[in-house]
Amino acid sequence: MKRETNHKRGVLTTEDYIVGVKNNNRAILARAITLVESNAKRHFHIAQDVLSALIPETGNSIRLGITGVPGAGKSTFIEALGIMLCEQGFRVAVLAVDPSSSLSRGSILGDKTRMDQLSRHPNAFVRPSPTGGALGGVARKTRETLLLCEAAGYDFIIVETVGVGQSEVTVRSMVDCFLVLMLTGAGDELQGMKKGIMEMIDIMLINKADGTNIQKAEQAKVELTRILHYLPQTSEGWQPEVQTVSALTGKGIKECWKSIETFTEKMKQTQQFEQRRKKQATNWFYSLVEEQLLLDFYSDKNVKSELPHLVKAVENGHISPTKAAFTLLRNMYKDDAELKQ
Amino acid sequence: MKRETNHKRGVLTTEDYIVGVKNNNRAILARAITLVESNAKRHFHIAQDVLSALIPETGNSIRLGITGVPGAGKSTFIEALGIMLCEQGFRVAVLAVDPSSSLSRGSILGDKTRMDQLSRHPNAFVRPSPTGGALGGVARKTRETLLLCEAAGYDFIIVETVGVGQSEVTVRSMVDCFLVLMLTGAGDELQGMKKGIMEMIDIMLINKADGTNIQKAEQAKVELTRILHYLPQTSEGWQPEVQTVSALTGKGIKECWKSIETFTEKMKQTQQFEQRRKKQATNWFYSLVEEQLLLDFYSDKNVKSELPHLVKAVENGHISPTKAAFTLLRNMYKDDAELKQ
Repeated sequence: MKRETNHKRGVLTTEDYIVGVKNNNRAILARAITLVESNAKRHFHIAQDVLSALIPETGNSIRLGITGVPGAGKSTFIEALGIMLCEQGFRVAVLAVDPSSSLSRGSILGDKTRMDQLSRHPNAFVRPSPTGGALGGVARKTRETLLLCEAAGYDFIIVETVGVGQSEVTVRSMVDCFLVLMLTGAGDELQGMKKGIMEMIDIMLINKADGTNIQKAEQAKVELTRILHYLPQTSEGWQPEVQTVSALTGKGIKECWKSIETFTEKMKQTQQFEQRRKKQATNWFYSLVEEQLLLDFYSDKNVKSELPHLVKAVENGHISPTKAAFTLLRNMYKDDAELKQ
Repeated sequence: MKRETNHKRGVLTTEDYIVGVKNNNRAILARAITLVESNAKRHFHIAQDVLSALIPETGNSIRLGITGVPGAGKSTFIEALGIMLCEQGFRVAVLAVDPSSSLSRGSILGDKTRMDQLSRHPNAFVRPSPTGGALGGVARKTRETLLLCEAAGYDFIIVETVGVGQSEVTVRSMVDCFLVLMLTGAGDELQGMKKGIMEMIDIMLINKADGTNIQKAEQAKVELTRILHYLPQTSEGWQPEVQTVSALTGKGIKECWKSIETFTEKMKQTQQFEQRRKKQATNWFYSLVEEQLLLDFYSDKNVKSELPHLVKAVENGHISPTKAAFTLLRNMYKDDAELKQ
């Protein structure tokens, strides 16, 4: 009875969410994601109970991360790849980690029309970027949305991010295979990329290899293959591949899909697939804990009032960083003994 | 009177340390470093008072970081460079950050004979690697030793580290200019390097460019120059340089010194030199604070007892990382409100 009333009022119980997601009721999945994304503290525990109940249903998808500078054609590529997979009977979910979304409200996927075809496909589920806020921020929400989509039975979760700042590291930390979409003029482009990105890449795609651009794309492929050869490998026994694609004409999409398959098979053979996921989960756990600890510390009113002066003094070399750190921390210590490891 | 007795007993007052270091009394400098390196809590405050008094005397050296895989010839190179600088009338201090030192006791500089000539030079001061322990560990001790050497008037502080693991990042975070010593067969070597190292390098030296090795070294130079060109620049407006040197014959040492000069001049012109130091100091301060906070948290007995089970549960996918984090943190929260940013 109560549940019925709830339903009428549109309020879902924890059970409703769990069952709905398991059955891939897309309306309920969407609401479960909204619940997970909510910054209202009253939603936190329900969301976590729903997730905990669904955890056994997760882990069965292939998680793909895709990055690239704005204009590299990520959306067009994801739509092309996604539709190909959907046509093969796979179910595909697309999420976004957009560092700018808290400002510009999901500037990656906010404009649904950019994946118009895919988002209308019955096998696809496209979700715009969440905005920041509670524990873990955007990253946590995307990770948990990913788990919800897995529990709903999606075979591929594609996490898109715009190639700027910290977001690649975040996305790399939640996917099995990381792709970067490049344009020709690779050298200049690499210069613009965040440090360390090159060493996170499993598959590099040179997009817009069509029309008069094909030759330049092939040249870039040769250059980039050589560079990648010299960099440390992201995944043991896997030499990052460089391919040319055209999201526009569809050329190279199948080959890209083959590489993803080969990569994941190889990772599974060598147990790296499972090991990476375990490592990702524990790292995520530790980062949530430590993020929260620091957040609380820096929100402390004494810390808040002392910090600016100390930082200035350190900057101007009026106090040694160690002394400054000790000053900021001292009210937490009964005696210096605790300063020792 | 008391001070005299102290001197007889070999006990130095804070004042003795300060004056002694300022006057570059090498015996007292050495003892000041030992004081800073001490893990005994009774030494912590004296050490910090000494440092605070000396802080105004610091900042006037050029801080060089040098890394490279074992066998790259770091010690021989540093000796050659150091002696050249000493001969020009500069005063040179050599420190080491050795991640392995807590195990193998200063495996970099422990064997003084490796820098025999330099350590006997009146203008040089060679200090083996400290061992870990108190707040900040090896990194803190090296940073503060660096400050002490600056206060003692050394013109160049060379911080050596062995090219493994986290230590490069640590050293990069305390120097103005970062050099890496390579051998030929660059490709394979790069493969072995830690991720991200390539993007921290200001000057790359291919050592042992002598005898039959010269041609291979020149080839490696061409390769590495091309690769570095494609990677993000460490310092704005500075394209990392690649040079061949022979620490054995002394070939290329002068040119290397020229590059260091050019680099530092450029950095000073563009204010990057000063900005980087300010950033390094504040980062150091924050890392000390946060390291200590986490250290205390993970030493808490409740945390210690709960953590292993939670980590296992997260690894095996029995609990969501968020729920696990919340469980571990909950005893710190009166209500969930504080879980929000």
